Amino acid sequence: MNGSWIYEKHTEDYGVSWKINNILHQEKSEYQEITVADSETWGRMLLLDGIVQTTENDEFMYHEMITQVALHSHPGIKNVLVIGGGDGGTLTQIVKHPAVEHIDLVEIDGQVTEICRKYFPGFQPGFSDPRTNIIIQDGIEYVQKTNKKYDLIIVDSSDPTGPAVGLFTSSFYASVFQTLNNDGMMVTQSESPIFYADIFTSIYRNICSAFGSAHIYMSTVPTYISGPWTFTIGSKKHDPRKIISDRPVPEGMKYYSPAVHQAAFVLPQYIKTQLIKAG
Amino acid sequence: MNGSWIYEKHTEDYGVSWKINNILHQEKSEYQEITVADSETWGRMLLLDGIVQTTENDEFMYHEMITQVALHSHPGIKNVLVIGGGDGGTLTQIVKHPAVEHIDLVEIDGQVTEICRKYFPGFQPGFSDPRTNIIIQDGIEYVQKTNKKYDLIIVDSSDPTGPAVGLFTSSFYASVFQTLNNDGMMVTQSESPIFYADIFTSIYRNICSAFGSAHIYMSTVPTYISGPWTFTIGSKKHDPRKIISDRPVPEGMKYYSPAVHQAAFVLPQYIKTQLIKAG
Repeated sequence: MNGSWIYEKHTEDYGVSWKINNILHQEKSEYQEITVADSETWGRMLLLDGIVQTTENDEFMYHEMITQVALHSHPGIKNVLVIGGGDGGTLTQIVKHPAVEHIDLVEIDGQVTEICRKYFPGFQPGFSDPRTNIIIQDGIEYVQKTNKKYDLIIVDSSDPTGPAVGLFTSSFYASVFQTLNNDGMMVTQSESPIFYADIFTSIYRNICSAFGSAHIYMSTVPTYISGPWTFTIGSKKHDPRKIISDRPVPEGMKYYSPAVHQAAFVLPQYIKTQLIKAG
Repeated sequence: MNGSWIYEKHTEDYGVSWKINNILHQEKSEYQEITVADSETWGRMLLLDGIVQTTENDEFMYHEMITQVALHSHPGIKNVLVIGGGDGGTLTQIVKHPAVEHIDLVEIDGQVTEICRKYFPGFQPGFSDPRTNIIIQDGIEYVQKTNKKYDLIIVDSSDPTGPAVGLFTSSFYASVFQTLNNDGMMVTQSESPIFYADIFTSIYRNICSAFGSAHIYMSTVPTYISGPWTFTIGSKKHDPRKIISDRPVPEGMKYYSPAVHQAAFVLPQYIKTQLIKAG
């Protein structure tokens, strides 16, 4: 941080600078440094260990896309597990679906939820919905130990550097597979295919090995690292590209539509080539 | 520039930093500062007035998309005009099509072409093709004065700050309309819909007023400003979303495919809303 600018170092040779009005909150939790900054362009921004996780003004490009694709392609989603997602943005999208009966959110860092409840009023609908149950625990441990089964598991993690490292391994995806019902589906954010090409392809490989196949789709999120952002789905039965015709799209979507759903799975040639090479 | 990093200031509250190995060339031409830098991740980078215009490693995400969509949706492209594009990347895509008979490239700054011929060997095929004719002149003046007519006009400009300002006005698009054959098509890069929302919507409005309608499609280019990048088409007759079935896709495409062509026109809801408001 330097004066009224935040400098975000993404890779060894790339960083971005955001001008901010002021820091609303900053603390070092047991797991990471948590910062809430206020900016002119993006509204309030949540940073973990200096990396932007979400902002009020572009969060919808990420949160709608990490949730609505699975929520419109799995025909019977009643029980949902969110791993990570302590900001409440993913929750706030899920509760828009009346078909969902229960959501467990497992977040490792209780301070993230506390702070986001306070500073991000837009995510209140997710936190305050009676179907939401928040569990402060390591998501890896949770999926290893729980006896519950879910229809959908959403892995809404930070980058694989801090506490989220274990959420990108093949043993984690194997546990996720075990924790899903027989027609269950999982979706994870899977990073930039350009700046984090190795992580992106290893997620694909690991989900393929747990589920037999994997489907990738894309969005763009301006406050994440430049270019495309990817999501990867593992599904036991249902094709995530096939939209459930009788499930209405919640009102007020700012990114998602059925046409966007289908177009998001069309990958540029260089990404297809990456995946072929990744085997 | 600071040590071995280039700092690119995009807006009043956003900038990015690129680590570079060294500067291969730097000069102040009549119009702008021209820099060629060498970087580990992106290969050689061309900067004009401190803003990245193209890099060896991600140029295809921009150049394939500014050219191949029109080249696969206009059934009779023989004569092409490129305005700007002095780096040769757009030329190099166009010459992949045997149907094209002649290309005039009108670049205001002769130094850009000289330098790119020298430092970007990947763009040699465009420069050295016998169908290519380079004219060093202001593109605005050229379309006002020429008696020639083209099937396709590609506006491959830098941002509307330096010498490119006039390439975003309604009078320029009116001249472009006049310079096209009766079934002609134009395409322009139309900036980030997020960081340059006003420019993006004004391009849309101006092309609509010249052509009666406009079509927007998207790509992502990591070394441009974060998030989506847009292109806007004005067409007198042919629907740019409709792919010509008998025109083969040139070999070696790294971004473009017929499926990408069609998916690129599917806009997220927030962009549709922007366009409705821009009316």
